[in-house]
Amino acid sequence: RHGQIEKGLASIMASETDSRDTSIGKPLVAADQNGQNAVEDFVDPWNVHTSSMKGVDYDKLINKFGCSAIDDSLVERFKRVAKVEEVHPLLRRGVFFSHRDLHVILDCVEKGQKFYLYTGRGPSSDAMHLGHLIPFLFTKWLQEVFDVPLIIQITDDEKYYWKSLSLEKVKEMAVENIKDIIAMDFHPDKTFIFRNLEYMGQSVGFQETLARIQKLVTVSKIRGQFGFSDSDCMGKYPFPFNQAVPSFSSAFPQIFKGKTNVPCLIPCGIDQDPYFRMTRDVAPRLKFLKPALVHSKFFPALQGANSKMSASDPNSAIFLTDTHEEIKEKINKYAYSGDRDTVKEHQEKGGDCSVDIAFQYLTYFEENDEELEKIRQDYSSGAMLSGKIKKILIGKLTRVVLDHQTRKKSITEDIVRGFMTPRQLVIDF
Amino acid sequence: RHGQIEKGLASIMASETDSRDTSIGKPLVAADQNGQNAVEDFVDPWNVHTSSMKGVDYDKLINKFGCSAIDDSLVERFKRVAKVEEVHPLLRRGVFFSHRDLHVILDCVEKGQKFYLYTGRGPSSDAMHLGHLIPFLFTKWLQEVFDVPLIIQITDDEKYYWKSLSLEKVKEMAVENIKDIIAMDFHPDKTFIFRNLEYMGQSVGFQETLARIQKLVTVSKIRGQFGFSDSDCMGKYPFPFNQAVPSFSSAFPQIFKGKTNVPCLIPCGIDQDPYFRMTRDVAPRLKFLKPALVHSKFFPALQGANSKMSASDPNSAIFLTDTHEEIKEKINKYAYSGDRDTVKEHQEKGGDCSVDIAFQYLTYFEENDEELEKIRQDYSSGAMLSGKIKKILIGKLTRVVLDHQTRKKSITEDIVRGFMTPRQLVIDF
Repeated sequence: RHGQIEKGLASIMASETDSRDTSIGKPLVAADQNGQNAVEDFVDPWNVHTSSMKGVDYDKLINKFGCSAIDDSLVERFKRVAKVEEVHPLLRRGVFFSHRDLHVILDCVEKGQKFYLYTGRGPSSDAMHLGHLIPFLFTKWLQEVFDVPLIIQITDDEKYYWKSLSLEKVKEMAVENIKDIIAMDFHPDKTFIFRNLEYMGQSVGFQETLARIQKLVTVSKIRGQFGFSDSDCMGKYPFPFNQAVPSFSSAFPQIFKGKTNVPCLIPCGIDQDPYFRMTRDVAPRLKFLKPALVHSKFFPALQGANSKMSASDPNSAIFLTDTHEEIKEKINKYAYSGDRDTVKEHQEKGGDCSVDIAFQYLTYFEENDEELEKIRQDYSSGAMLSGKIKKILIGKLTRVVLDHQTRKKSITEDIVRGFMTPRQLVIDF
Repeated sequence: RHGQIEKGLASIMASETDSRDTSIGKPLVAADQNGQNAVEDFVDPWNVHTSSMKGVDYDKLINKFGCSAIDDSLVERFKRVAKVEEVHPLLRRGVFFSHRDLHVILDCVEKGQKFYLYTGRGPSSDAMHLGHLIPFLFTKWLQEVFDVPLIIQITDDEKYYWKSLSLEKVKEMAVENIKDIIAMDFHPDKTFIFRNLEYMGQSVGFQETLARIQKLVTVSKIRGQFGFSDSDCMGKYPFPFNQAVPSFSSAFPQIFKGKTNVPCLIPCGIDQDPYFRMTRDVAPRLKFLKPALVHSKFFPALQGANSKMSASDPNSAIFLTDTHEEIKEKINKYAYSGDRDTVKEHQEKGGDCSVDIAFQYLTYFEENDEELEKIRQDYSSGAMLSGKIKKILIGKLTRVVLDHQTRKKSITEDIVRGFMTPRQLVIDF
């Protein structure tokens, strides 16, 4: 649980039921900037590599993982069922691009049945960066549109087993990250946030659900799917199950009153899909519902879609702790530009929005479609220079980040404790 | 956790620090009844095999496992330190025959430091048999002598993963077994009894201790030590850690006020030693104390020390639910006798107490040494016939079992809940 910024190597094997192609060993091949089939795309929960400045080839990834593209007709149905005039920018702009069984959730809504949202995050450093906001921005909108409970898992256990960190340090990181998440204005009476290493010791429902899953899956399956080896520490092996468990409402008896079949929708990065393929494979054997998913693309690093954001390289990303000056300097200095070699050439031929990081970031944070389209036209035509589009982005992100910091300042330990207390939520089941 | 009555195959590898001989592949060789080196002894947490009517060769087992014999000088020291006139029959008769670091616990007592007792049981059927009482009988005496807290783990998780049983069924079995244990008159204010699948969902202290251990041990180590394979279900792999965790006081913050280094003494069957070898190996790396152990021999089946007691064969053991008539019939019909072919020959040559099950059982349940010695002499000399020694045993066991049944009747669900509630005990830390 943490997506594209982590190290470690593992190969994914797509699981039997939910995937079309189990040979993950055969890597994706993406065209690089020069149109050549160069270095291969690689996507798993611990690694994302691509050599293309345009990022991972998502069409191929959908095919490989065996999920489904979110097409126009699905977006139309979503609007109709959700009774919204327009869907969230991240959905209509294709950042959330893929799904599993989203129509099942829409069926529920049509029938007046409640579902719940489940997402999460692996605390990777004290400060979250902009990329970390993406699933939460969309999830918050989903929660508001459907008025459903939201469950957020913080996988401190994963960090503990994968990294050379103490229990105390991962706890500290988790709490800091939770403050950032709460600062996004989630509803305290409809949202439960938990750290695995805490809630697992607070919930018999979680433990029993975990036991049921762990009885049905062999070790060879987990080794294959997640690339674990004999020299890995024992703690890693059960981790995929810990991420699977919250997909089932039986893990939260305090919220769902012991109901074991409340449908679940999981917004997450596409790199998290292997966990939920395993989860969906095992669900029918437990007579549980398969969780539905909506997958997002990867938020690119400042240096471009072919490089990695990393907490250990402060210049690879805009962090939620950055000042206006830092944002300005990072974007001006490091944001990969789709401009031309000279102003003259740029004005003649226009910039390339598909690789320009300033434009890419604006597709995430400029909510106004007309504004964004105008920027796209002006930059593509050459009327807008790189300095200008970067200036627009700096202004936008400074507001996003400073607003976030203001909200975060008011998040006390008591508020954190409130969100993390296992309790009934106001939505009744 | 359950000793000699279970099926399943696994090879033990003794672990690096605590054992003298890691080649468990080389099995023990015991002389069979005819003095031949026949079928080999085999002891691990899931299987005990011996071809000898005298039972497992315990001297060889001590050597193989790398533990230490409890000799006369240790028993003498025990008496001195515990300030008792005589030690428990099970100790002075060599049923508890082996230990690890028992002297460390005695050092603590001498220095006025408190320790705690930890033992457990895997619920294998609704009814416990006499063999299941043994560790509890001795543990109860230890608790009374030293006035220390006692923690009893019920490994319902193990049963769930190893057997074809539902969660509901193992829970039911666990509660039934807990009633039997409580009926042995453990002190409600000094004893905490828990099911793994419940307490693991009630204790962050347990979860954190588990995480610390699971981070330090590789999967290859666990596979080697417990003979797990790739085709085993995932749930089995973390189980040895669940049995290790209660060896550390950090798993019970409600009892030990967060103290992580309260010494622990574990009375258990020698077949459970592999779990605690692993536990003792990992302890120093966590800056935890190694738990001390006292090991018991195996309680023989009615058919003799070379056969198995099994819940699925009611005639292999005396169960705590048996009636006087059943006890009488089982002992008369099935208890292996060390008598001779004819009364005349018996009177001339005498019976063989070392294989006679009636005599063996009396060494467990006849507390009076003089009485037992008289029986031994009379039976060995031939003055006492098999019918008579069996009659004595029937009388003894009928009292033991009926007294137990009377006490068990008064154990309500509320009393069970009381013992199982995570809480402070009256002994202060």
